[in-house]
Amino acid sequence: MQRYFFNEPYQNQSCFEATAEMYHHMVHVMRMQVGDEVYLAFTNQQVIIAEIVEITAQTLWLKEVAKESQQKELPIEITIASGYPKGDKLEWIVQKGTELGAHQFIGFPASSSVVKWDAKKLAKKAQRLTKIAQEAAEQSHRQVVPTIQLLDQKVSLERQLADYDMVLVAYEESAKQGEKAMLAQVFNQLTTNQRLLVIFGPEGGLTPQEVDQFEEKGAVLCGLGPRILRTETAPLYLLAAASYHFELNG
Amino acid sequence: MQRYFFNEPYQNQSCFEATAEMYHHMVHVMRMQVGDEVYLAFTNQQVIIAEIVEITAQTLWLKEVAKESQQKELPIEITIASGYPKGDKLEWIVQKGTELGAHQFIGFPASSSVVKWDAKKLAKKAQRLTKIAQEAAEQSHRQVVPTIQLLDQKVSLERQLADYDMVLVAYEESAKQGEKAMLAQVFNQLTTNQRLLVIFGPEGGLTPQEVDQFEEKGAVLCGLGPRILRTETAPLYLLAAASYHFELNG
Repeated sequence: MQRYFFNEPYQNQSCFEATAEMYHHMVHVMRMQVGDEVYLAFTNQQVIIAEIVEITAQTLWLKEVAKESQQKELPIEITIASGYPKGDKLEWIVQKGTELGAHQFIGFPASSSVVKWDAKKLAKKAQRLTKIAQEAAEQSHRQVVPTIQLLDQKVSLERQLADYDMVLVAYEESAKQGEKAMLAQVFNQLTTNQRLLVIFGPEGGLTPQEVDQFEEKGAVLCGLGPRILRTETAPLYLLAAASYHFELNG
Repeated sequence: MQRYFFNEPYQNQSCFEATAEMYHHMVHVMRMQVGDEVYLAFTNQQVIIAEIVEITAQTLWLKEVAKESQQKELPIEITIASGYPKGDKLEWIVQKGTELGAHQFIGFPASSSVVKWDAKKLAKKAQRLTKIAQEAAEQSHRQVVPTIQLLDQKVSLERQLADYDMVLVAYEESAKQGEKAMLAQVFNQLTTNQRLLVIFGPEGGLTPQEVDQFEEKGAVLCGLGPRILRTETAPLYLLAAASYHFELNG
């Protein structure tokens, strides 16, 4: 069943109104009719099943049939921070990471990031990534659309570290040195609704200086297994491991 | 350090000989010199660090310096069986799945597979996927290159089920019904060197009939968390969860 995200919190009301893009998608793309049902997701994570009761030239009206019961969101909020990688890798970190339950994505210029994006380019990129996250959230039946934050300075990321309950740095050297206890330890320490930030380097990896700076601000280094993961694969490993740990009693 | 795979088991010998493609890559692509060191991986999972001792017009000679100590392979052998998906999705299931430790990949024509490949096309495809697996195995420091098997009939997959210690079917309906205990149960039952086959459907998913057929042959259904994963994302979830469980004390 199709899923749509309202940009407002849920309020119990007799009718819900779909206009603009949502109207267009329901009526012209999906060719929906009165009587058809869809999921409506709201900013406060409430999702309802709603039935189309009237379709006019500009507006489509829906009425609530039931509330979605199953919890679709990870019990902890995971933010993925990626040093800007090459090509379209950030696009698919966002697409796959949204499927896998990420709460937020941050991009930042790491020392070994090759791409250099100015404010204008970053704004455009953020728009595109937000659309990708929205589509992936609909497809994967999320209750929340992850937010996108593209930073133009690394220091802006460092300043944010204190906002999280825990900060992990996925560090290749830790993996090479056989570090394998930290991820499970951190997951075991985190409780419902706490916020975890995980920082990943670009293709070239994070420099020792960068790692030191993050550590000084309280970040903990962890390995993600003995194999060397590409910059776009590591965040998916982290999110899948979190889902296994928190959602599948792993 | 660069990694090369020999198509033979390791034997203690005074010198190792690199010719043909391996020679070309070392000498012309990497511009390696006498004294440079590389990893050499053998079919029996032994990996050594070797130093280049002589380079001639056709052949490059290496001598063993040390053995690689760290275990890079998952303790259980996981085979990923994917119903043929659209486009290049199989390519990147193989690339990412190799990074994440898969032992073997099987492709099969599922009922809802759109693509139809004849024997000739399958042979070509298998060649290409083998190359992708080889490159990903080098990049991710694997000790084994995963094998590729592209089947032209589903029945050939069904016949193989008995060859595995356990068979899982990643079934969207199980996830929707909130099944969340089976994956951890199966991981807990498996012991070192046992073989696990996990079957994934194409975009359209597996049909109830297909699922029944696999179940009759002893397969167990499992969900991979509450979110709906794309056909190319689900195998990566499975492999990352396995790594977290078996390699990171998760």
